[in-house]
Amino acid sequence: MAKHQIVTLLTDFGTEGPYVGAMKGVILAACPRATIVDLSHDVPAHDLLAASLVLWQAATHFPPETLHVVVVDPGVGTDRRILAGEFGPHRYLFPDNGVITFVARRAPLRGLASFRKTDLLPRRNVSATFHGRDVFAPLAGMILNGLKLSQLGPTPDSYSLLDVPEPAEREGAMVGQVIYVDRFGNLVTNLPAAAIGQRWQDVSRCVVYSGGRDLGAVRATYGHVGAGELLALVNSMGLLEIAANQARACDLLNAGVGAEVRVVGPAVV
Amino acid sequence: MAKHQIVTLLTDFGTEGPYVGAMKGVILAACPRATIVDLSHDVPAHDLLAASLVLWQAATHFPPETLHVVVVDPGVGTDRRILAGEFGPHRYLFPDNGVITFVARRAPLRGLASFRKTDLLPRRNVSATFHGRDVFAPLAGMILNGLKLSQLGPTPDSYSLLDVPEPAEREGAMVGQVIYVDRFGNLVTNLPAAAIGQRWQDVSRCVVYSGGRDLGAVRATYGHVGAGELLALVNSMGLLEIAANQARACDLLNAGVGAEVRVVGPAVV
Amino acid sequence: MAKHQIVTLLTDFGTEGPYVGAMKGVILAACPRATIVDLSHDVPAHDLLAASLVLWQAATHFPPETLHVVVVDPGVGTDRRILAGEFGPHRYLFPDNGVITFVARRAPLRGLASFRKTDLLPRRNVSATFHGRDVFAPLAGMILNGLKLSQLGPTPDSYSLLDVPEPAEREGAMVGQVIYVDRFGNLVTNLPAAAIGQRWQDVSRCVVYSGGRDLGAVRATYGHVGAGELLALVNSMGLLEIAANQARACDLLNAGVGAEVRVVGPAVV
Repeated sequence: MAKHQIVTLLTDFGTEGPYVGAMKGVILAACPRATIVDLSHDVPAHDLLAASLVLWQAATHFPPETLHVVVVDPGVGTDRRILAGEFGPHRYLFPDNGVITFVARRAPLRGLASFRKTDLLPRRNVSATFHGRDVFAPLAGMILNGLKLSQLGPTPDSYSLLDVPEPAEREGAMVGQVIYVDRFGNLVTNLPAAAIGQRWQDVSRCVVYSGGRDLGAVRATYGHVGAGELLALVNSMGLLEIAANQARACDLLNAGVGAEVRVVGPAVV
Repeated sequence: MAKHQIVTLLTDFGTEGPYVGAMKGVILAACPRATIVDLSHDVPAHDLLAASLVLWQAATHFPPETLHVVVVDPGVGTDRRILAGEFGPHRYLFPDNGVITFVARRAPLRGLASFRKTDLLPRRNVSATFHGRDVFAPLAGMILNGLKLSQLGPTPDSYSLLDVPEPAEREGAMVGQVIYVDRFGNLVTNLPAAAIGQRWQDVSRCVVYSGGRDLGAVRATYGHVGAGELLALVNSMGLLEIAANQARACDLLNAGVGAEVRVVGPAVV
Repeated sequence: MAKHQIVTLLTDFGTEGPYVGAMKGVILAACPRATIVDLSHDVPAHDLLAASLVLWQAATHFPPETLHVVVVDPGVGTDRRILAGEFGPHRYLFPDNGVITFVARRAPLRGLASFRKTDLLPRRNVSATFHGRDVFAPLAGMILNGLKLSQLGPTPDSYSLLDVPEPAEREGAMVGQVIYVDRFGNLVTNLPAAAIGQRWQDVSRCVVYSGGRDLGAVRATYGHVGAGELLALVNSMGLLEIAANQARACDLLNAGVGAEVRVVGPAVV
């Protein structure tokens, strides 16, 4: 039985217009039996940091050889490059604007190729504003049909990475910031539980502060405080998160991306 | 040819984050050829009543043996149970928080099993906050691959049901309330057309009142009143609904879930 | 190997309720291996012009024989007809309310049939308000399973088309208007680049005005002006569009559907 092809799409196109449907049509025209999975089309428009985090958290769970296509691409039509590469068992096709950052943080991509507008795509078919339909989708179709990533073009020397804020040590505390607000109003920080654990061993005895509020010790899950109450926990991404039980932490704290969060170790008795 | 597996997802995760994509990745990693269908990911966060109604109205139309996975789960990470059971020709995997209420209203679920954290899922892989990805999706994958529901764990004595308001008889009228507001602003009530018909035979001659307004006799469809006008009708769920032709009844009546609706029989001449 | 069936759905049902899931269930119950693709369910409620444009722009990219099912249908339950027909290599099933306009603009549909409520669908199963589930989806399932469009019913004499505004010539300018606002706040006009090019040859030297603002010459893409700046370009639909680089043109111009846009040719030196 022929291999089953899986391709995912991550865009900021939204779902009310024709854009996502057009991309899917092009991919299915090339490979009618492919399974197309939406990672998201509701990334905030042009938000590369959010897109990068969503890609990282969703993409790694798919079967080997899944092709992840990312079209969050404010530079469409300018001379920004389109790249393809492998990370772990997955393949990625993406604009060279840093959206790959969280995926490529632990190790560089392998087999990197830079798409060259050669005879792969007749130029007359390529609009200046919708490369999702006119470049990414046709290339995805070719890759699903057997085109090797290396056939897209030459290996580039490097690729763009976002300048993601790093946690810092200050006055005995680890100081990080909110990098993502999710649908539930949870505030995801750049503070990895692993780093906190390395510094103070028992994460559950560390205490978290943000917006002038003492959020208490790090809890295991939402239900461990009363409904409507704030808490800090280690989320499913392995990052410190400020949340509220059945309520929106972002509203309760009036905080968003960039808000500072401090962690201090257990008080020494 | 091997059986084709269909699995649906109903969550309140929204579509802008990585959560739905991660669940789909886990399911496809287990069963790459499964068809995954979104019932909805836009149920209002933690709204068990809305989720229960959406599940009931969407799930029953699928082919036999479809597996419906529900992750509207404000109690994630606490000791609430995860259950599986059958209703009609379908299988359901859901948190024991009442979300199954409308499905199980007419008859109890069959073959009920309560998931026990045994060696099915290594504990180290289970986060406290994202059981959609770490428990529901892996279990769904195992069920698609042949695991029987009874293998999930012991049969529980009972399961949770929501306290859905029931219509009452008052001063010669049937009195119900709005239990769901849909995308068009239509107000779905808990008044079954069948019960109204049993009381007064001809539903189309009954008259409906809400918010101090006389909505007239029960109509057949939206287009039977002028654009922007309110009406009452029997909706596609078999429930009395207050709607407006090409307008939002919830705004015109300033009403929502809980609003009272009264039905009286035909005037006796 | 059996033919692989692809069916797309375009509705204004939104994604928070049970409506889309119910339609998919009915289709999969008839044809479990069909690939169902969402064109959009977030078309503004009852907006036939937007739906028609989304359909046109998305549908044409799909593989031959794809069945496109459109349920943007404010007249549901009244005596408006349901039609089926072919355009190019694709099949369409849609309410006769003009939603087919942009698809059928260049040439009429072929093989048109008007659904007759015969024994195809037992009347007792058809609600008055949810023909998506009770008429369109079952018919789609039958078509996927081999029913010919002509078997749906007799050929109608004509079908409805929307009264889409046409560009006009005034005082040496081409005057059009905005017909669609997309997710990015881009203002899509009814001015085809091809018609502008026929009038003045070099579109890129034409100058665009709207809302009392001079938007300069027609550019190639968003990145050719500074971030936050307005521009005019030829979009991926071949239509003149007013946009802003990484910003919302509709907000910057306080303009929406119906706003006037003027194009004048290159100044003669």
